[in-house]
Amino acid sequence: MIMLEKVNLLDAANATKGLYVYDAVGKLNGGVVSVVRVENRTLDFHVHEQSDELFFVLEGRFTVETDDGQVTLAPGEMVIVPKGMRHRPVVTSLVKVMQIELEGTLNKQNSGTLYEP
Amino acid sequence: MIMLEKVNLLDAANATKGLYVYDAVGKLNGGVVSVVRVENRTLDFHVHEQSDELFFVLEGRFTVETDDGQVTLAPGEMVIVPKGMRHRPVVTSLVKVMQIELEGTLNKQNSGTLYEP
Repeated sequence: MIMLEKVNLLDAANATKGLYVYDAVGKLNGGVVSVVRVENRTLDFHVHEQSDELFFVLEGRFTVETDDGQVTLAPGEMVIVPKGMRHRPVVTSLVKVMQIELEGTLNKQNSGTLYEP
Repeated sequence: MIMLEKVNLLDAANATKGLYVYDAVGKLNGGVVSVVRVENRTLDFHVHEQSDELFFVLEGRFTVETDDGQVTLAPGEMVIVPKGMRHRPVVTSLVKVMQIELEGTLNKQNSGTLYEP
């Protein structure tokens, strides 16, 4: 018997072990749905060659910068960074985010100090 | 120059042409991110053989039934129905939902009268 389990994304983000720690909350067609809390962190520009990347803000705000501009996301807003596009997240205050990328996409270089899939 | 475009998912759901009309708001690694408004509709049990299916509630509530149980989703909650699992959405009042499936998954049989990708 396989019961479906629902996930409250904001609760899941609040339940991660700390800032910058990703929790995988689901798998979707080769992708990983994860939640994370981040505060005051700007990652280096980077590219995911194989995977598009979806960001959806649960609480707070942050900015995604690309070579051609930037977009600031508020709660309820999402953006999809196409694979191959150089980008970096710029976080200046506490933000809680849901992300989806293909499995194996996130690592210490592109996601900060910690990743616990 | 490729600018990122953000999407407010609830606004997008409110902007669809009517009830039961899916709007595709993004593409993600072979999947389609879509929004839809549904009211008082129960689809037949069905299976997506090739695709997992993510449901995320933006406003309202609805229930996903499977052979082994059911789960009722409130705003901010998501569930992923694994490919191959028989299921049906049961909607008794207005609900606004974001879904993600692999491209080509939704059709009139499994999604109701209308699908405009």
